Order: sequence, then C-alpha cells, then structure tokens
Amino acid sequence: MNEAFAAVCELADEASYAQRTLARASTERKNAVLLDIADALVTNAGMIEAANDVDMHEAEDSGMSQGLLDRLRFDAGRIGATADGVRGVAALPDPVGEMVRGRNLPNGMRLNQVRVPIGVIGMIYEARPNVTVDVVSLCIKSGNAVLLRGGHAARHTNEATLAVIGQVLADHGFDSALVAGVDRYGRDGATSMMMARGHIDLLVPRGGAGLIRAVVDNSKVPVIETGAGNVHIYVDSTADLDKALPIIINAKTQRVGVCNAAEKLLVHSDVAEDFLPVVANALTEHGVRLHVDEASLDIITHAGIDDLDIVPATEEDWATEYLDYEIGIRVVDSMDDAIAHIAEYSTGHTEAIISEDYSRIEEFTARVDSAVVMVNASTRFTDGGMFGLGAELGISTQKMHARGPMGLEELTTTKWIGYGTGQVRP
Amino acid sequence: MNEAFAAVCELADEASYAQRTLARASTERKNAVLLDIADALVTNAGMIEAANDVDMHEAEDSGMSQGLLDRLRFDAGRIGATADGVRGVAALPDPVGEMVRGRNLPNGMRLNQVRVPIGVIGMIYEARPNVTVDVVSLCIKSGNAVLLRGGHAARHTNEATLAVIGQVLADHGFDSALVAGVDRYGRDGATSMMMARGHIDLLVPRGGAGLIRAVVDNSKVPVIETGAGNVHIYVDSTADLDKALPIIINAKTQRVGVCNAAEKLLVHSDVAEDFLPVVANALTEHGVRLHVDEASLDIITHAGIDDLDIVPATEEDWATEYLDYEIGIRVVDSMDDAIAHIAEYSTGHTEAIISEDYSRIEEFTARVDSAVVMVNASTRFTDGGMFGLGAELGISTQKMHARGPMGLEELTTTKWIGYGTGQVRP
Repeated sequence: MNEAFAAVCELADEASYAQRTLARASTERKNAVLLDIADALVTNAGMIEAANDVDMHEAEDSGMSQGLLDRLRFDAGRIGATADGVRGVAALPDPVGEMVRGRNLPNGMRLNQVRVPIGVIGMIYEARPNVTVDVVSLCIKSGNAVLLRGGHAARHTNEATLAVIGQVLADHGFDSALVAGVDRYGRDGATSMMMARGHIDLLVPRGGAGLIRAVVDNSKVPVIETGAGNVHIYVDSTADLDKALPIIINAKTQRVGVCNAAEKLLVHSDVAEDFLPVVANALTEHGVRLHVDEASLDIITHAGIDDLDIVPATEEDWATEYLDYEIGIRVVDSMDDAIAHIAEYSTGHTEAIISEDYSRIEEFTARVDSAVVMVNASTRFTDGGMFGLGAELGISTQKMHARGPMGLEELTTTKWIGYGTGQVRP
Repeated sequence: MNEAFAAVCELADEASYAQRTLARASTERKNAVLLDIADALVTNAGMIEAANDVDMHEAEDSGMSQGLLDRLRFDAGRIGATADGVRGVAALPDPVGEMVRGRNLPNGMRLNQVRVPIGVIGMIYEARPNVTVDVVSLCIKSGNAVLLRGGHAARHTNEATLAVIGQVLADHGFDSALVAGVDRYGRDGATSMMMARGHIDLLVPRGGAGLIRAVVDNSKVPVIETGAGNVHIYVDSTADLDKALPIIINAKTQRVGVCNAAEKLLVHSDVAEDFLPVVANALTEHGVRLHVDEASLDIITHAGIDDLDIVPATEEDWATEYLDYEIGIRVVDSMDDAIAHIAEYSTGHTEAIISEDYSRIEEFTARVDSAVVMVNASTRFTDGGMFGLGAELGISTQKMHARGPMGLEELTTTKWIGYGTGQVRP
C-alpha cells in the first residue's frame, strides 16, 4: 500500500506539473489534440479491440454476467462512436478563460472572476472502456490532468486506449504524464487516490452504489458524489393521463440499468382508479415487475387484470434503486404526501411531476430538492448530452460544486484577478 | 459523544425541516427579518454586552492575550456596526431563484438552471462574536439554516445574540430552529457536526490554521477550507517602485493578523539593490521584523542601514503565515523563479505582482494558481466587502464549489428544472 501510495502521488505530481502547460494551452491547440485522439482511436481500433478481447475472455472465464460483459465490450463500432464523442467535445465551447463576473470597484480597480482548470482530476470507475475516453477528452478540453482507475476487468483495454492517447499528446508536444492510469496498482491504486490529498484536487467515482459509497466515506480528497438515482414520478390529480403513460413507460423501460430511469411511481388517489390499471397493464407488457402498496393492490386487483407480475411493496422497496425491470407504486392522497415521500426516500437525482395545473407545478418544482425536476417529461432526459452540455463526466447528486450532469464547466474552478494602479486599503 | 452526536443531528434535522419554509420565502420577507434582527441587536445591546462582560471576565481570568481579548469584545459600538452589516446584507440582491443557465432543447423542452439554497450550513469558528451575526444574516438571506459552534470563550455572548435572533425569527413566523448554537456540547459539538453527514450539507471552519486543519482532516461532511494565507508580493524588474512601496507597506502593516496580509516579498534581482534598502527601511519604521535570504541580507547590509530588525530566513520561514509584524524577503533572478517559489510555498489565497509590463502581468496572472491574483494593488483587497459581494462567510482557499471570498452566491447550489409537454427519450 505504501508503495502504491508513493507511486500514485508521484504520478499525480507529474500530472500536475504537466497540467501547468495544458492549463494555458489555446483552445485551438487542445482541439487539435482531441481531433487527433479521435482519429488515432479509429486507426488503432484493431489493436484496442484485440486488447479488449483479452479482457472479454478473462471476464467470460471468470463467469461475468451478460450485462457486465456487454458493458465491457469495446469493439470497432463502439470505438468509432466513442471517437465521435471526442470530436463532439472538440466542438464544444472552451470553458477556460470565460469571465464569470467582472466589475470595476469604487477605488478604480478592475476585478475579473475567470474560469480556470481545477488541476488534477482523479476518476475511479467500473469496467466501461468508453468512459476512459470520455473522461480524458473532457479533462483535456477543460485543461485538467487526469488519473484513471478503470477497474481490473478492463485493464488491457484501458492500457491500450491510454497508450494511443499518450502518443497523441506527445506528438503535440504535451507531456503524456497528463493522462495516467493507475490500474497496475489494483485496489491499492484506488485507495491511494483517495488518500492523495494535496496531490489530486478532485475525485469523481462513477459506477455502482457500493463503489461510490466507499469513495465518499473514505476519501481525504474532495469528492463529487455521482449517480445514485431512486427516481420518482408523481402523477398529480390534474395530470393529462395520456401524457403520463408514455412518459412513465419511457422513464422506466427505455433503458433500465441507468441512474435516470424511474424507480417509483406515486399516483394521486383522485386518478388512481382510472390510471393504475392502465399503467400496470402497460408496464407488465414491458416486462416490469410491480411492487405496490396496499391501496394500489386493491385497485389493480379489483380491475381484474390478469398476468401481472405484482408483489406487495416493503419498506425496503421505497429506498431501493432497482436498476432493473421493477418499479415501486404507491397511491398518495395529496401532492404534499408525494413531496414528503420524495423527501424521505429520494437520492436527490431526478423527480418528475405529471400535471396540467400551473400552481401544482410551481409548488412541486420549488419544493422538491433534487438535482433535476422534470415537468411532463421523461426522467431519462437527465443527461449531459440531452441537456446540451456535450459529454458528461457523471451526474452529481450532491450540492457542492456541481449538481446534476457534470460537463466541461463543472471541471473548472475560478480565479479572481484584480487589476490596480497602486491602490491600497484605507 | 454519542449523546452530543444525537443531539446535534436532531438540531440539524429540525433546522433542515424549518429550512424548507425559509427556502421558499420571498426576498421581501427575508429582508424584513434581517432589518428586524439589526434593530433587535441594537435594542438589546445592553443585554448582549452584559453577557459579553461575563465572557470577557472569564477570559481575562484565564489569562487570554490582549489580542484575543480584543477579538472577543462585543460592546455597543461593535454591536451597532454588526447590525449595520446585517442591514447591508438585507440590501444585497437575493441569489435564490437567479437563473444561471436557461435554454430550449431541440425537442421543445425548456430547461432552466436556477439557484437554490444549500440547506443546512454548519459553521465552526473561534471567539469573534460578530461572526455569529454575519453568518446568520448571510444564511437567512440565502435561504439556509445554520448550526453554529462559536467557541467556548464567547459562549455567553453567542447565546445572548442567538436568543435575540431566535425571537425575531419567531416574531416573523419562522421556526427559530433555523438558527441553532451547539456550544453547550463543547468540543463534542464540533466533532458531532463533522460526523453529521446527511444532516449538515456543508461545513465551514473559520479561525486559526489548527482549527481549519482539524476540520478538513476529520469531517465526513463536505468542507470548505478557508483562510490560510501565506501571501506573496512579487516586485518585478519592470515595477514602478513608487507604487510598490506603499502597496507592500499597506499589505503587510495595515492589519497584520488577517489572512490577506502579505507574508512574503519576492524582489527581482534587477531592482533589488535599488529597492530593498528602501523597503527594508520603511518596513522597519512600521515595526516589521525582516526574515531575509542571503542575497537580500548582502544588499541591505551593504546599504549600511542601521536599526533594522533583521534575521536570516530559514526554510521554515518560506512556509510560515506569520500573522504578525514579520515578513520573509527573497531576491529572485526571474519571474519564473518567483512563480516557482509561489507554487511551492503559497497556500493559494492571494498573490500580487508589481509590474508595468503587459506581458509579464499577463503571464503572472495566468500562471499563478491562487484564489486571487492582484496586479499593482494591495493584497488586503481580498475581501467580500471590498469585492462588492457584501459580507463574507470566509475566504475559500480550495478549488471546489467556492474560491476566494464567499458571499451569498457561494451559499447556494443549483437545481435544473425541465418543462416539457410529454417528451420521451428516443
């Protein structure tokens, strides 16, 4: 451990030194690097895919599930799509140098607050090789160095990918220490990153709830908590039920293993008898298991629908992020009850209200304290790409520094510059 | 400890519940509370001063230094000035509800990012009773609840002050649980606040380096690091020395016990022979002891000035924040050397360059990675009031969330609200 810690700190310090040059690089120069990385990934797709094959075989042999195997695959098609993502980042506006605030002080000084890179970002994530490229491209564009711990299962893939990126950086006259993997140190690499306060400026964990919890609990480096999404949709008594149904089906089933997928449905009692049988039927057709409270069970049972995969909800269900074809359903007697339920169980990621009533919508959006509140739209829109931020580093569910999808701006801090002509404080 | 922890969590949860109402209160209503707090402080100044007398007598008996005793004093004059500060906060624009970004998405959704309060702020500070009022007024204006741990020495003063504030909150129909002191739990109160992750949203320590270090190292709650200022002034070869001298004297001596006071002077070798004797003389006249490197010592000795309080600088000096009538002085052969010295020893609070050269200034301000970089102006301007932010909660020397003086805006987070008409993700 001590050895890994020393090595990780050294990597971080080398990255920090190299970052001083990147911090001042022009947008043009950074974009040229990004476009060349995109091309180099495509050119070297065969080599990367071969490395990925090694990881895939090892993972298959170790009995990895089909879902995880699919996440691990990085074939030519996915490499091409990832390269397109890098080109997309090149096309985004550069946040560095943006003037956030600027004013003249009464004493004649000019005071500017400008965006600057953070420094050295640490990323701890799980076996999705495209994340390596996404994160590197966001960090380069925002002028940051990055240390990556990408998970044991993807280590050959990540190594091959980072070799390609490092070569492009060197070709452009940048120190390849800007982007460094720490996979070779195994778990100690991740632990060392958490301890490297003063060497790494910001740590972002991305992956399962266990990974994120471990980093948040143990890191001495400032962390941005990402991802956990116990996402609620509240169907108000004033909802247009024809809008509600497709939104719920989309939010629950368009992709189930993601943090912005709906996990809970709260239905106002005034519309429960009309709506619950319909939505239960539709969810069933999409293969969703229903965990329902007593009131919902009564209504659905009386409607006499067959072939439902329905079970009583337990207290544990209300706090669970299923990430699967499952949903919790509860009848609430008022919007107050819905908001109270959300305040108690939500992870603060995304909640939605379906309503046509102006006052209800104003109140719900004001009172629900989550990173994103959707009105009459699918929760699946909580996404950096969908929000027009370009790629995203993750979705922050905390309140400090960044909240919601983290794009380029969230990878910066600010610096105040005061331009004087000899002013002193009276 | 377990008892204090439970009590502090309960106070935080009550504060959080009360905050939900404050979060949605109109600016008008919050300002009315602030103006009444200002008036009530003045009306009750006698009672508060009597409580302060008790603290002062205890502190004198315990042998507190004159400097600390002066900080602890909260007499009618200071209470009046503090009340004026509260009126100043009432006059500031309300950050809550400000639209940070807003756009229409291609699918027709309207997406707004708006400022919202953070929730429950925890403040751990040392015996300066005016801080209690400053912090409470900033928190109320920004819609946050606050838990305060103000230090044993000031506990009677703080209790009296909080009683006045609590009464005004109650008179305006707010729950007085919004503002709670935890001094009665002693050190366990502070420790409990650090452990209260999930109950307190943000912890801000303000005080000596030891206090801040202890909170940063031990807190499970997100912390904003404040205050440590090993502040450098670099006098370039292109400096107007007539500007340099008053800036240095002001930055070092206008007030010595504060984080934005200059602690180090780096002088370019081209101007060292001309400038060092002059500045050494002037600093001496202001009672400042000089810790100088060999080159400076040579120059100053050869100039034949008498009566200097001058000692050789040690390695330790370069890293020390004196907070006193002392300064470290070093001759550098280039701006590169000055920037390297700053990168090695600075705490990232404020640095200044004195120069008339455009390119040097551009490079210095770009390369020095501190919260504030001053050009031809005193470092003492790093201050929320001076920056036009109104009062300040502290000066952040970290990069996450807030950097530099923390005003009302830094006490907010954001929320995304997406207004749709039935959109689902394709």
